[in-house]
Amino acid sequence: MFTISELFRKTPNEFAAIDLGSNSFHMVVARQEDGELRILDRLKESVRLGFGLTPEGDLDDAAKERALACLRRFGERLSHLPSGSVRCVGTKTLRSANNTEAFLSAAEDALGHPIEIISGAEEARLIYDGVAHSLAGQAGNRLVVDIGGGSTEIIIGKQFSIDFKDSLGMGCVAITRQFFPDGKVTGKAIQAALMSCWQEIEPILRTLKRFQWEHEVGASGTIKAAFKVCQANGWGTHGITLEGLEKICTHYEAHGNVEGLSLPGLSADREPVFLGGVIVLRALFESLQLKSMEASQGALREGLLYDLVGRYGNQDIRETSVRQLAQRFHVDTEQAERVANTALELMQQVQQEWDLNPEEAGRYLRWSAYLLEVGLDIAHANFHKHSAYICEHSDMAGFSQQEQQILAFLVLSQRKKFPAKTYKEQKDKETVDKAIQRLSVLLRLAVILHRARADHSDIRITLSAQKKKLALHLAPPWFAEQPLLQADLASEAQHLAAIGYELSLDAPSPST
Amino acid sequence: MFTISELFRKTPNEFAAIDLGSNSFHMVVARQEDGELRILDRLKESVRLGFGLTPEGDLDDAAKERALACLRRFGERLSHLPSGSVRCVGTKTLRSANNTEAFLSAAEDALGHPIEIISGAEEARLIYDGVAHSLAGQAGNRLVVDIGGGSTEIIIGKQFSIDFKDSLGMGCVAITRQFFPDGKVTGKAIQAALMSCWQEIEPILRTLKRFQWEHEVGASGTIKAAFKVCQANGWGTHGITLEGLEKICTHYEAHGNVEGLSLPGLSADREPVFLGGVIVLRALFESLQLKSMEASQGALREGLLYDLVGRYGNQDIRETSVRQLAQRFHVDTEQAERVANTALELMQQVQQEWDLNPEEAGRYLRWSAYLLEVGLDIAHANFHKHSAYICEHSDMAGFSQQEQQILAFLVLSQRKKFPAKTYKEQKDKETVDKAIQRLSVLLRLAVILHRARADHSDIRITLSAQKKKLALHLAPPWFAEQPLLQADLASEAQHLAAIGYELSLDAPSPST
Repeated sequence: MFTISELFRKTPNEFAAIDLGSNSFHMVVARQEDGELRILDRLKESVRLGFGLTPEGDLDDAAKERALACLRRFGERLSHLPSGSVRCVGTKTLRSANNTEAFLSAAEDALGHPIEIISGAEEARLIYDGVAHSLAGQAGNRLVVDIGGGSTEIIIGKQFSIDFKDSLGMGCVAITRQFFPDGKVTGKAIQAALMSCWQEIEPILRTLKRFQWEHEVGASGTIKAAFKVCQANGWGTHGITLEGLEKICTHYEAHGNVEGLSLPGLSADREPVFLGGVIVLRALFESLQLKSMEASQGALREGLLYDLVGRYGNQDIRETSVRQLAQRFHVDTEQAERVANTALELMQQVQQEWDLNPEEAGRYLRWSAYLLEVGLDIAHANFHKHSAYICEHSDMAGFSQQEQQILAFLVLSQRKKFPAKTYKEQKDKETVDKAIQRLSVLLRLAVILHRARADHSDIRITLSAQKKKLALHLAPPWFAEQPLLQADLASEAQHLAAIGYELSLDAPSPST
Repeated sequence: MFTISELFRKTPNEFAAIDLGSNSFHMVVARQEDGELRILDRLKESVRLGFGLTPEGDLDDAAKERALACLRRFGERLSHLPSGSVRCVGTKTLRSANNTEAFLSAAEDALGHPIEIISGAEEARLIYDGVAHSLAGQAGNRLVVDIGGGSTEIIIGKQFSIDFKDSLGMGCVAITRQFFPDGKVTGKAIQAALMSCWQEIEPILRTLKRFQWEHEVGASGTIKAAFKVCQANGWGTHGITLEGLEKICTHYEAHGNVEGLSLPGLSADREPVFLGGVIVLRALFESLQLKSMEASQGALREGLLYDLVGRYGNQDIRETSVRQLAQRFHVDTEQAERVANTALELMQQVQQEWDLNPEEAGRYLRWSAYLLEVGLDIAHANFHKHSAYICEHSDMAGFSQQEQQILAFLVLSQRKKFPAKTYKEQKDKETVDKAIQRLSVLLRLAVILHRARADHSDIRITLSAQKKKLALHLAPPWFAEQPLLQADLASEAQHLAAIGYELSLDAPSPST
C-alpha cells in the first residue's frame, strides 16, 4: 500500500509509530537526540475496530468511520513529518478482515502515510523489542505477554534476543464479543471463556513449559488496567496475581454485566473489554502457573519505533531475515551474489529515467536475488512458484505482509511468462505496479545474464531505458561468442513484448 | 483417480506396467517366478497423444479417441489381472493438458485399472530404475537419457542409486510440432530447434558437467531408432555418435521434409517424429560433449514394474520418501508416531463398518501423520496450509501426483474447519471422497487426542462407527480429569456436524 519510492529519502530526526490495534489505535512520536530517542507525544484512541468485524469477516462501516476519523486526527499531528519517518501497522483485525483494500487506501489518505499489515509473528517480535527497550537494564530470562483486542502475543527472551514467540487468536475484544455478546455475565460464561482460552494455549503449552524465566512482564491496556485494579484493591501490590484476577471475575459474576461495575482503579474507557482481557490473562496465569506479572510501558509501537530508527542506523533486521531464509533453504549464495550485483549494475543505469529510488529499489533487487531459488528445496519443477510461496508465507522478521508480497512477486516473475496478475494486495495501484514491474524487468535480465552460473564480472553491460524501450549493449567480442545468451535474450525480448516493453540488443543477431 | 480400497488386496504373481507417453503408449506384462521377473508380453502403440495438444493446452477429441481405443485393447489383454497388479502412469502431455479429468475417468474405464499422473522427477527416477535393472551387472557411473514425446529425462547414477535427475520440457513430438509444423525442413529450422534445446539444457549444464560418467546410456524410441540408423549407415557401430546425428540432420535438410526420407534402418512408424528426437539428442551430445551412446532395453515401464513388485516385497520407496521429507522439514517424530499409532488404533475399530482397506488406509494415515507438521518450517501461522503445499509440490519418490494430493488434503484438514473443497483432482468422485473424508476424521481425532503432545499410550480409546455416527469412549477415571480434552472434543463434534457427522462422547460432559 505504499509506493516504493516514498520511503528512505534522508535520515529524519523525528519519527512516529502507529499501531492500529483491534481495540485501540496508538501513536507515539519521538525525536532522536544524541543517539537517544526522546518521546515527544503519545496518543491513544479506543477505536474498537474489532467490534466492527461481522460474522462473515467484513469490517462494518461504523468501525471504518471511527478508524478514519482517528487517523485524520493522527495525520494532523504528523503533517510536518516527511514520508519515511512514520511507520503505521495494522494487526489482527486488519489481517483477518476481508474487505480491507479500499479501506486501507482511504486510511492511508487520512493518515498521509503508508499503512502496513504485519503478521502475528512480527507483532510478537516488535512487542518484545518494545518491552526490552523499556527494561533495558533487566537481566535474566523473561516471559512477555501482550493481550490485544484480537490476538495475544507470548514471547520468551533475554535482553534483546528472542527464544520463543507466538501469536494466539484470543484477545479482549474477541472474548467479550464471543462470550458476553449482550453484556450479561454468568459464572458459566466465564468458565466457557476461560476454557476457550485454555484451548488456544494448549498447542504451545508443552513447549512453553520447557522454558524457564525470572520475570513475568505484560504489555497492553488489559495488563496495565489489571495491574491498577489489583493495586487499588490490595490484590497484589507489586504486580498482578492470580488471586486478583479470580477476584475480578467473582466481582463481575456477582455484578452480572460487563458494564457498570465500578471497580476501584478501573477507567471507564477500559471497562467494556476489561473482563474479556482479564479472562485471557487468567487463563495464561493458570496454564503457565504464573506468580506475579509486572506491567511494562513499552509495547508494539515502541518496538516499531526502534525498528524504524534502526533501519536508518545500519541495523535493518530485514537484511538478516533474508540471509537466514536463503541459508535455511540452501541457496547458492555465489549465484545470488552474481545476480544481485548485475541487477544493481543495471538499475544504476536506468534509475533516473525510471524514477527508481536507488536505496529502496536496490534493497528489493538484492533481497529478491537472494531468494530466487529458495523454492528449489521443495522441488525443481516450478521452483519459482515455490520460491514465491516461501517468500509470501515465511516468518520474515522486520517485513510487513505487503513487503513479502512484493518479494514474492519479484521471485515469481523471475523467468518464463510474466504472471498475469500482480500480487493481490496491490492490484489497484498503478504507480506501485509500474515500479515493481520495472524491478522485475531488471531482475529477469540479471537472471538471464547469469543463467550459465558463471562469473563474468569483467564484462561490461550497458543498459539504457526510455519509458518502455530498453537497449542492452554487451561487450562485442565476448557477446558475439555467446550464441546461447543471444538466444535467451531474444526469447526475453518476446516475453517483454507481451507486457509492452521493447528490448533491443545492440549486438550481433542470434546466430542461425 | 483410483479408489483407495482397490489397491493391495493380496500379492499377485502377474504384473503389468503401462506408460502413457506423449508419443507412444507402452505396456509390459511380467510374471514373478522364484523372485525373478519374467517378461511375458510387450505392447506398443504410437498414439501420439502429444500431437493432440491444442495451443490452449487442451487435448483434442481425435487424440482422446486414439488413446481410448488403445487402452481398450490394452485392457482386454489385462482383463484377467486383479486390481493392484497393474500400474499405469501418464507423463508430460497428461501432466500439462487442461481438460484431463473426464478423459482420465473414461480412460480408467477403458483400461479397467487406475491411471496415475507422475511428475517429471518421478518419471526420471523410474526410467533410471528401468535402465539400471536392464544393466544390472554394469559398474561405474552412468549418464542415462530418455527422450520422450514431450519431455527428456536426464539422470546420473551408479548401479541402483541416483546422484542427479531432472526432466526438461523438450521431446520429439514437441520439437517436431514447434519447428516443423507443416513438415518442411530447412537448415535454419534445424538450427533454431537445436538452439531451443540448448536453452532448455542451459540451466542444468554447469551442474551436469561437474559429474563424471563412464557409460552413456539412452532409453526410449528415439534412441533405439537413432542407434539402428547409425548402425545401418555405418555412422557408429557400437553406439550413437555425434557424427551420425549430424549426418541424419544433413540428410533431412537435403530431403526437405520430416516424412518420406527412406533412411536405412528407420521404421515408418518412427519417421514422423524422428528428426525432432534426433535434434534433442544432438543438442545433448553437443552440450554435454557425449562420445557414444548405447541403447538400453529398460525404460520407464520396466522401472514402474520393478517399483510395483517392490511394494509387495517390503521395498516401498514411498516409506523412505515420507521419512526423508519429515526429516528435512524437522518434524517432531515422537509426536508423529503418537498420532500415527492412535490414528491406526482408531481405524482398526471402524475399518469394517467404514469399508476401509486396512493396508492402504493405514498407509495414508501413517504417512500423513508424519507430514502433518512439515509446514511449521515455513511458518507457525497456518502451518497446516504450508504442510499441504509441501506435500502437494515436493519431489516425493514413488508417489503419483494424485497420491500426493490425497496426502495434501489429509494434512490440510488436520484441524479447524473442514476445507470447503477437496483436492482438485478428485472432486467428482463420490466414493473416493468418502473414504478420504473418513480417513480425515480419524486423523483429526488422533491429532486432538495428542494435542498436549504427551504420551498416553496406556489409555484405552474405543471408537465405533455407524455410517456418519461416531461414538468415542475414553477410559473414565482418566478422561474425567481432562477438561481441556473434553472441550477440544466438544469443539470437534461441532466441526464434524458441519460435514454431517455425529460424534458422541461416552464420557462426562465438559466441566463448566
